[in-house]
Amino acid sequence: MHQSTRKIYRKLLTPIEALELAFKYIGKIPRKVVEVPIENSLGMVLAEDVRARIHVPSFNRSLVDGYAVFSEDIATAFDDKPVELTLKGRVYAGEFYQGIVKRGECVEIATGAPIPYPTDAVVPVEYTLTIDDKVKIYKRIAKGGNIDSLGSDAVEGEIIAWKGERITAGLIGAFATAGVRHVKVYSPPSVTIVTIGNELVEVGTSLKPGKIYESNSYMVKSLLSQLKAHVNVVGPIPDDLEKIKEVIDESLEESDLVATIGGTSAGEEDYVHQVLSKYKPGIIVHGLKIKPGSPTIIALSGDKVIVGLPGFPISCLIATLLILLPIVEKISGLKTSSLKRIEVLTAVPLRGKIGFESYVPSILKKRGNNIIAYPLVFYSAAIVRLSMADAILRIPEDTDYLPAGSRVTAWLLNEIDFRRTIFMGSHCPLLEEILKKVREKAPIKTFYTGSMGGLKSIIEGLADMSGIHLYQKGEYNIPILEELNIKNVILVRGYIREQGFIYRQDIKVKSFKDIIENNLRFINRNPGSGTRNLIEELLKNTARETGESVEKLKEKIIGYNLEARSHEAVAYMIHKGVADVGIGVRYVAEKYNLGFEKITDEIYDILIHKGSLNQLAVKQVLEILNSPSFRQIIKSFPGYKIHEKTGKIIFES
Amino acid sequence: MHQSTRKIYRKLLTPIEALELAFKYIGKIPRKVVEVPIENSLGMVLAEDVRARIHVPSFNRSLVDGYAVFSEDIATAFDDKPVELTLKGRVYAGEFYQGIVKRGECVEIATGAPIPYPTDAVVPVEYTLTIDDKVKIYKRIAKGGNIDSLGSDAVEGEIIAWKGERITAGLIGAFATAGVRHVKVYSPPSVTIVTIGNELVEVGTSLKPGKIYESNSYMVKSLLSQLKAHVNVVGPIPDDLEKIKEVIDESLEESDLVATIGGTSAGEEDYVHQVLSKYKPGIIVHGLKIKPGSPTIIALSGDKVIVGLPGFPISCLIATLLILLPIVEKISGLKTSSLKRIEVLTAVPLRGKIGFESYVPSILKKRGNNIIAYPLVFYSAAIVRLSMADAILRIPEDTDYLPAGSRVTAWLLNEIDFRRTIFMGSHCPLLEEILKKVREKAPIKTFYTGSMGGLKSIIEGLADMSGIHLYQKGEYNIPILEELNIKNVILVRGYIREQGFIYRQDIKVKSFKDIIENNLRFINRNPGSGTRNLIEELLKNTARETGESVEKLKEKIIGYNLEARSHEAVAYMIHKGVADVGIGVRYVAEKYNLGFEKITDEIYDILIHKGSLNQLAVKQVLEILNSPSFRQIIKSFPGYKIHEKTGKIIFES
Repeated sequence: MHQSTRKIYRKLLTPIEALELAFKYIGKIPRKVVEVPIENSLGMVLAEDVRARIHVPSFNRSLVDGYAVFSEDIATAFDDKPVELTLKGRVYAGEFYQGIVKRGECVEIATGAPIPYPTDAVVPVEYTLTIDDKVKIYKRIAKGGNIDSLGSDAVEGEIIAWKGERITAGLIGAFATAGVRHVKVYSPPSVTIVTIGNELVEVGTSLKPGKIYESNSYMVKSLLSQLKAHVNVVGPIPDDLEKIKEVIDESLEESDLVATIGGTSAGEEDYVHQVLSKYKPGIIVHGLKIKPGSPTIIALSGDKVIVGLPGFPISCLIATLLILLPIVEKISGLKTSSLKRIEVLTAVPLRGKIGFESYVPSILKKRGNNIIAYPLVFYSAAIVRLSMADAILRIPEDTDYLPAGSRVTAWLLNEIDFRRTIFMGSHCPLLEEILKKVREKAPIKTFYTGSMGGLKSIIEGLADMSGIHLYQKGEYNIPILEELNIKNVILVRGYIREQGFIYRQDIKVKSFKDIIENNLRFINRNPGSGTRNLIEELLKNTARETGESVEKLKEKIIGYNLEARSHEAVAYMIHKGVADVGIGVRYVAEKYNLGFEKITDEIYDILIHKGSLNQLAVKQVLEILNSPSFRQIIKSFPGYKIHEKTGKIIFES
Repeated sequence: MHQSTRKIYRKLLTPIEALELAFKYIGKIPRKVVEVPIENSLGMVLAEDVRARIHVPSFNRSLVDGYAVFSEDIATAFDDKPVELTLKGRVYAGEFYQGIVKRGECVEIATGAPIPYPTDAVVPVEYTLTIDDKVKIYKRIAKGGNIDSLGSDAVEGEIIAWKGERITAGLIGAFATAGVRHVKVYSPPSVTIVTIGNELVEVGTSLKPGKIYESNSYMVKSLLSQLKAHVNVVGPIPDDLEKIKEVIDESLEESDLVATIGGTSAGEEDYVHQVLSKYKPGIIVHGLKIKPGSPTIIALSGDKVIVGLPGFPISCLIATLLILLPIVEKISGLKTSSLKRIEVLTAVPLRGKIGFESYVPSILKKRGNNIIAYPLVFYSAAIVRLSMADAILRIPEDTDYLPAGSRVTAWLLNEIDFRRTIFMGSHCPLLEEILKKVREKAPIKTFYTGSMGGLKSIIEGLADMSGIHLYQKGEYNIPILEELNIKNVILVRGYIREQGFIYRQDIKVKSFKDIIENNLRFINRNPGSGTRNLIEELLKNTARETGESVEKLKEKIIGYNLEARSHEAVAYMIHKGVADVGIGVRYVAEKYNLGFEKITDEIYDILIHKGSLNQLAVKQVLEILNSPSFRQIIKSFPGYKIHEKTGKIIFES
């Protein structure tokens, strides 16, 4: 093939090979050790064995509220044959009993109080009866019974935590108990993130044409902060050889590790590898056998580490998970990665690339004892949608085709509450109001994928619940379920809503002809949405009227390629003056005080997977649809109407 | 039975009932909302829907390095039939191409750069060949190919994160990308922890007799800080009604929630419930149906919440996990608990208590797809040993007997690396040196349980590896494995070590008679340790010599009940002057410059479960035992000798 001479990746390594190589160098770097008060040590790694400073407990103490006795005195005590002892006094926690107890006597004692000398057992209060200074004992307690004896938890000098252990909340409690006020830990490294790229500007500043907000540093900083690293961010700096060198030089002065983002993808303006090759020992890893994330560099400048991360968000995320975080953990003194990896089963067939490990952002779902991974498919530039992923799964290097149901490893991006209900389907402002109430009580994750996307995800088993409005054969939703022969679902009738043209208040739009003739800026909806289907339908009709092809019409419509994923976003953009006209429900038109021309009444229904009927969020949605208060809510939503079967099951399979 | 009138728990509730009741009140408390810069928002909960402030991307841009073309121009391009175009210029990321491109022309374009007007596709550089100003194109690319179009990731106004979502690193990246600089989040609550008890002193201060270091607040603060709560600690304060009221009053002024620790167990000196009943609406939950942790209180003072936690460490931990953390999460705006719960199988039969949920600290082990929980059994006062637990499992309320293999819920205390090797067995300083090297490379968790404890845990399947020195029938370790008919293990020969009396330099000890006659302070070892067996053996011999009973001898030995769990701790305590004499290996005696009188040579072997032979740490131990460098190491360990079979398998079953 026609390989460009600009591609200069050499000796690509797997992430494991790259880390092994890097760790050979990093392992020799002396680690910084600091002493911290225990309350600041959570999550840090011990740089010393920690020993108990005292015996724990440091005296024999009672484990219960009761009476300290001589076990031999009560050897015959029983339910119907109590032994009577003379009460000589009381001792509370924090005190010492001053007298000497004699045989036949006892001392009332509180939990945690020192055992009076020389008694040898404690009878719990529930097995006693006290009248004046006489105590009846109804149960025999053996010598040592209910006594927590000196050093039984730890003796002075005993190692209670090992060098290399990560400090937990439990250990901090143990340190305090054992008189340890400070511990030596490996100092988490200081990291400077340098963002590089002429196209980048800082978020919050104004965005000039061709520029984008720098966002990778925020994501990487958040991930690093979970490892307790001290993170500083510099940039964005331009693609300029000297400037890059200067900033990395300065950052190396102040940090243990420098992570650059961007400038590694070997284009002619990518200077990072040129700069990094100037340090000694210089670049040790240049390129990984992974997709995406291949253009990752590891370099060294003396004892300092430099990691060059790619600038594409998903590449940057994967290189951060696989390379940067393990290196920072290594410097932090952790022996083994604390990154959460899990085994998952793939929901659908996936394509890999021989010679590369392929990484795929996925949504996870628990089914029985298995966790099923559903790939989220999108360009590597899509960071907003990437934030919806739960995990990144790996397709191995030797695999070009992975059948559905394959067991693979995945890196968890977040904690997941598997009790959550996954809603995927069409966007609707009224449904959003319902889900808002549900979210107060039950975990739910929402993806607006359009009606077709919702239907597909119910079939695949990813979604528990969907909202759809698909017109076919003169009826909404039921015909398509029958045609596709979808099993194990119920369809619950939702409600009726008005769809129409939404437009700026100062114009009027009644057809696509109006839009084309007046050069109005249109805002489209995403493919697979019921509203997009309506738009395509309307264009076919317009084409018939005008005699032009549908393709030609689409080219004539300004903004036809700009797709919003919700009714709300369509109205918002018109309201903001970004577009002049779109198609959506009356409710959002009125909300933003825009013009509205009704096209049709349509029905929005709720499709539920039968296996999910017990989920809290699903039950809540059904409850709300059938509640009298929903009749009230819908009245405050212009353009919405109750259907005679609202809340009823209208289809089951 | 003989119930004390001091027990005043009433209407005990399950934790779920208690939280339901508490949430009815807490749900009505207005939540504080604050605006924070996105970089400070990790882990917080959104108090608003977040919308994209710009289209992402905000212009059509290239997804690859290559050439921007008209797709119609290259419709016939193929490997062996390239199309030639004229190169008109270049455009890099962050720039705009200034000219207008005509048919037959192309523009070199970098990843992320804006698409020159009006080209409609990008050919990746690897399918091109450029000579001077002519570019040969070897592949057809469809219209829109390799173009990331305006708004394809998100359009301005689209909701990209929902009210009530917990903010992840991925979301922070999405916020920046979409131009969102600040977000509104629920303010994590401010919490004041008040520790109560006459017996408590602050760690780091001197410990007077009968007092203990206050440690619960450190553990609870660490757990709360993971929820981002702002935590302040007050105390320890004495068991004094007025003082307690005064401190809680002050804390309520400054905090959203006050957690008291201690003073709830209904003893006569327990004032917390008395104080809390004075607030309005006052106590809403008084006592839980859980063991341990029952004496937990939930109270309200106006809009402020007060949680009374029990003072016993394990009770405090369980009440914190089940009650305090869910309440703090509720106030933080989280809909659902982020506490990590998992399903586990019980390794051994367990006893519950009808009418109470019983909670048992456990160590977890993965076997196939199941996680097996092994109870750690100890008094609820043992916080040092509690820190070794991975999780707390629950025995349900209706269960008094739970057979081995039962499926129950457990609360995870820490992240667990299930690849770890679990070592349980006898302590040995030389083994500790070996494990120190292993820990550098492989995850290992160490419990010094003594030789018998190690053997038992191998049989139960908890330990992967053990170290034992058990003498029987004239031989070490093999006879007992045969007698107990232990299956699926290998025994690897370790080494020889000298055991003897260890004592202060200014005295001499050759027998237990010396110890008794001179009133020396002895330090014992834990039951189940090989050294304790040796001590018992020696005492039997001494009893035969003196004609006294072994029991009588034990009573005569000062400190016989004080048990250290390691050789090191024995020597350390003598070195520190806490004891005068103990029994252990020569190495520790010399390390602390103490006297040593040899009793015997014994053999310390490594026992390995066959199912664990592939574990990294196990392999490492075997490698070290068989390495030439081990012969060098052992020379620097006084009292240790290589055995002729060191590193060899001497028993297999």
